Amino acid sequence: MVSLKRRFGVSDISELTVARLSIYLRCMEELERLGVETVSSQEMAKRFHLNSAQIRKDLAYFGEFGVRGVGYNVTELKQYLIEILGLSRERRIIIVGAGNLGTALCHYSRFTGESFLVVGILDDDPGRIGESTPGGLLVEDASRLGEIVRQREGEIGVITTPAERAQQVCDQMVQAHLRAILNFAPVQLNVPKGVLLRTVDLRVHLEELSFYLAHGIPDDG
Amino acid sequence: MVSLKRRFGVSDISELTVARLSIYLRCMEELERLGVETVSSQEMAKRFHLNSAQIRKDLAYFGEFGVRGVGYNVTELKQYLIEILGLSRERRIIIVGAGNLGTALCHYSRFTGESFLVVGILDDDPGRIGESTPGGLLVEDASRLGEIVRQREGEIGVITTPAERAQQVCDQMVQAHLRAILNFAPVQLNVPKGVLLRTVDLRVHLEELSFYLAHGIPDDG
Repeated sequence: MVSLKRRFGVSDISELTVARLSIYLRCMEELERLGVETVSSQEMAKRFHLNSAQIRKDLAYFGEFGVRGVGYNVTELKQYLIEILGLSRERRIIIVGAGNLGTALCHYSRFTGESFLVVGILDDDPGRIGESTPGGLLVEDASRLGEIVRQREGEIGVITTPAERAQQVCDQMVQAHLRAILNFAPVQLNVPKGVLLRTVDLRVHLEELSFYLAHGIPDDG
Repeated sequence: MVSLKRRFGVSDISELTVARLSIYLRCMEELERLGVETVSSQEMAKRFHLNSAQIRKDLAYFGEFGVRGVGYNVTELKQYLIEILGLSRERRIIIVGAGNLGTALCHYSRFTGESFLVVGILDDDPGRIGESTPGGLLVEDASRLGEIVRQREGEIGVITTPAERAQQVCDQMVQAHLRAILNFAPVQLNVPKGVLLRTVDLRVHLEELSFYLAHGIPDDG
């Protein structure tokens, strides 16, 4: 028995919940691979080191899943998570910055299932334009961003330029109507309302590790 | 007037607080660059889009900073944040996986100030061993991990191998006495107690963007 809510308040749902949905999806994929047909929130929590009350609470935002005393149907929940996460159609990615990190990400998208496709990698260095990447794409001229986004229906922009170039590229992505931007440049960027920006900040991660190395690692790691 | 607590309960302090300390440190660096000598939590909140009550609460774990009605001395708070984050001494990083991502990270550490230094990049592909990286390091044989960690006093391990190799590399890092591990392989890894593991999961980030593209982007982005 599944009843999926067609409408829910996006702003009621925390980023952490959304991140956990992504984790739950991976759990379902793993269980499906193992041939498991149904799983309770308790079993899921135990197997994947999650919190069963949290699982039930997170899923409750989106509908009623699972049968009391039986659990979730793995394939069904997987499909619903795909739908909730907006992964039932392909999301096209344009990367600006064709250095090692940008090039690595071209390749990385192969590991993220079939929902994401890098359709362009751009740079403004004439020495890089025309080079081929491991993913098979050729590096194109960053000045063609608007045209490339339009032609290839890009939705997600990824910034892998040096810090000093990042805000300018970000502005160009906004102008090119990319509404979701993932920034890897080590700098805080500004976007207007209606555009979603996430920064993957490696310095924050390294400094967190340093904090715990200095003060001791808590038991729950 | 600063009184820094020499002792505090590490497990009382959330990961989010630690991540914010890293952000506050960057704010202080930026203010110092701009020649600002003192700043209140309100001014800091306004300028960097933070929450002033949160700033005061986060800092209160570690001591009493700032003067009522005046604010924090920028250089002093910067120094204390460096000390709290364990950045007053260099932390040495060993990367295993010399593909594009590993190579990019060699380079990236240049942007993280003087506290982190990549001292080794290892791989088990004989075709890669001996290659030079943009950071100037030569790729070394992954089977020498233990010896290299010991000789170069490595503290942080970074995993940039394919998913299927990651748990094995992680186990080898634990055995080599690396106590903090940053994993970029798209897989959940297990470590024993006393070892800190953080996974930078690009799929979670991409799926989060997809969720908001599907359901609408909240006003606070």
